[in-house]
Amino acid sequence: MAQKVKLSTIAETLGVSTATVSLALRDSPLVAAVTRDRIKEQARALGYIYNRRAASLRTSRSGIIGVVVHDIMNPFYGEILKAIESELDRDRQTFILSNHYDSVEKQRNFIETLLQLGGDGVIMSPAIGTPPEDILLAEDNGMPAILIARSIEGLDVPIFRGDDAYGISLATNHLIGLGHRVIAMVGGTDQTSTGRDRYQGYVNALRKANIEVDPGLRIPGPRSKQGGFEAAVHFLSLPQKPTAAVCWNDLVAIGLMNGIARAGLVPGRDVSVTGYDDLEEASIATPSLTTVWNGQSEVGRSAARALLDKLAGSHKPDGIHLIKPEMRIRQSTGPLKINGINGHSGHDA
Amino acid sequence: MAQKVKLSTIAETLGVSTATVSLALRDSPLVAAVTRDRIKEQARALGYIYNRRAASLRTSRSGIIGVVVHDIMNPFYGEILKAIESELDRDRQTFILSNHYDSVEKQRNFIETLLQLGGDGVIMSPAIGTPPEDILLAEDNGMPAILIARSIEGLDVPIFRGDDAYGISLATNHLIGLGHRVIAMVGGTDQTSTGRDRYQGYVNALRKANIEVDPGLRIPGPRSKQGGFEAAVHFLSLPQKPTAAVCWNDLVAIGLMNGIARAGLVPGRDVSVTGYDDLEEASIATPSLTTVWNGQSEVGRSAARALLDKLAGSHKPDGIHLIKPEMRIRQSTGPLKINGINGHSGHDA
Repeated sequence: MAQKVKLSTIAETLGVSTATVSLALRDSPLVAAVTRDRIKEQARALGYIYNRRAASLRTSRSGIIGVVVHDIMNPFYGEILKAIESELDRDRQTFILSNHYDSVEKQRNFIETLLQLGGDGVIMSPAIGTPPEDILLAEDNGMPAILIARSIEGLDVPIFRGDDAYGISLATNHLIGLGHRVIAMVGGTDQTSTGRDRYQGYVNALRKANIEVDPGLRIPGPRSKQGGFEAAVHFLSLPQKPTAAVCWNDLVAIGLMNGIARAGLVPGRDVSVTGYDDLEEASIATPSLTTVWNGQSEVGRSAARALLDKLAGSHKPDGIHLIKPEMRIRQSTGPLKINGINGHSGHDA
Repeated sequence: MAQKVKLSTIAETLGVSTATVSLALRDSPLVAAVTRDRIKEQARALGYIYNRRAASLRTSRSGIIGVVVHDIMNPFYGEILKAIESELDRDRQTFILSNHYDSVEKQRNFIETLLQLGGDGVIMSPAIGTPPEDILLAEDNGMPAILIARSIEGLDVPIFRGDDAYGISLATNHLIGLGHRVIAMVGGTDQTSTGRDRYQGYVNALRKANIEVDPGLRIPGPRSKQGGFEAAVHFLSLPQKPTAAVCWNDLVAIGLMNGIARAGLVPGRDVSVTGYDDLEEASIATPSLTTVWNGQSEVGRSAARALLDKLAGSHKPDGIHLIKPEMRIRQSTGPLKINGINGHSGHDA
């Protein structure tokens, strides 16, 4: 199998970073002219062919599309992947998958492998801290990239994701409408665009309702059931005695409800809990979960479609395509109880 | 990228099946001599190189290993995949993933793509109805296969899976020990080796305890939470009034518990429920799930190790390597209630 010369090979032989090589080959002023020349010479020597936007020039396609996300075991990504897969299947494309677990290096290895395999394109939910150069590495080698779920600043590629700030404000407003005033936000991180947007949506909704924002009510943590389950102890012992929780996602919400139930309280009656995503599981949880539909299937379908269209020569405008979330009201939220606002103080197991 | 000639190309140009081509090239007496010669001639004409056990002769490796399972969104496979991934990572292998959703055709496409990409090996949980020829297609092209979770008759490849019959008998015996006599088996199919073994384990345990086996207590169904949730209505309306359920897996068990709770009953008190697999989620479910540890991480790690060893030249004996399951007793099972054996008759919602 003929191997393409990789940017990393050029980088290694010269002792510079892959990003520097990528920038140099694109004549970026960020790289000193002398280094730029040295890199270009080496690239030529190694037989590296630099094709800017080469995708449009390609005559043959491998039929391989790569997809890389944080963790395919997270059903949020699972539901997106199912939609991507069914769209690609209709087009007889092979899709190959990888997790990056928020390791920029693992993600870069995957992109380089994909280039080596002659991949046609890549759909990715970028790892935390992904430098724009790593996406350009794909693009500049003729392999267009489409982003899902997370944005990266300063990149001209299509991005498909839900409107997180708006979505979380729907959940927060729903709780405020039920009379809750002390509302915690549980799970997640501020290191991703999603995280920052969700926290902002929560803050904005509280402010609009003239409720003071208390940073002590923010309980960050893993975006998993285990994370939600473990946060229950913290949540139930907060001195502010929250009566409701806006959770990062459905997994955290289901875990938190399990933890709350384990402490002898009834979620939906003693404590109101909202999720985010509307996973298939949300409606069969007990109590069924009030949550925000985040359009996973729409994100997956649109991203796959955009990539296939791009490969076929037509161009969807770059930039962010926001999918508008919708509220799904079920049993895990209820009106604030007048007596014993924080009914759980007496029940702790 | 140079493409290998595929068995399917030879098959298509001659109008025969891929399996026939594979058999003919292996001089199988199942293919008529005249057809065999025609196929071999065509293979030569197309430049196909037949390498029996070519893996051991290979001088260069691509570092790519394929993994194909029923559905990566099922956390049972997710946990196996995580173990495979971490083992391959240590060896700097790239792994590419696919679902087959029990489509033999989708699985075959994946194997052929992998051959085209120069894959070093494949780890697979074979689709229902996989003919041995499809595995030989990989093996005969120098890409060794390792099976996980499911067996296929008549194949000389290593298989790593749990001892399903023994595992289910542990769960059934646990319930019998708690005094239960009317025990349903919920979820799953008899179309896989796993399915047949699990049903047999349940039947054997009942017989050993002199409990009559009632086929009406077998509720087959999807191996998902949704499947378990939907089975609750059927389970609760059975005229035999079962007091316990042995579930196909943890997903079915958690779904069933949700359905039972929705009907106003308390799982673990009114109805005892066992799972299978001991997924991460089992211990944080409410009530926490009594289940059988099925060694997913052990299956994944061993399968990856066996493949890497094989690629490195050493040979693990072919055949089935059974991982011994273990009981995990938690809150979802309890002693048979003396009064109102079938306590749920009065509570149905």
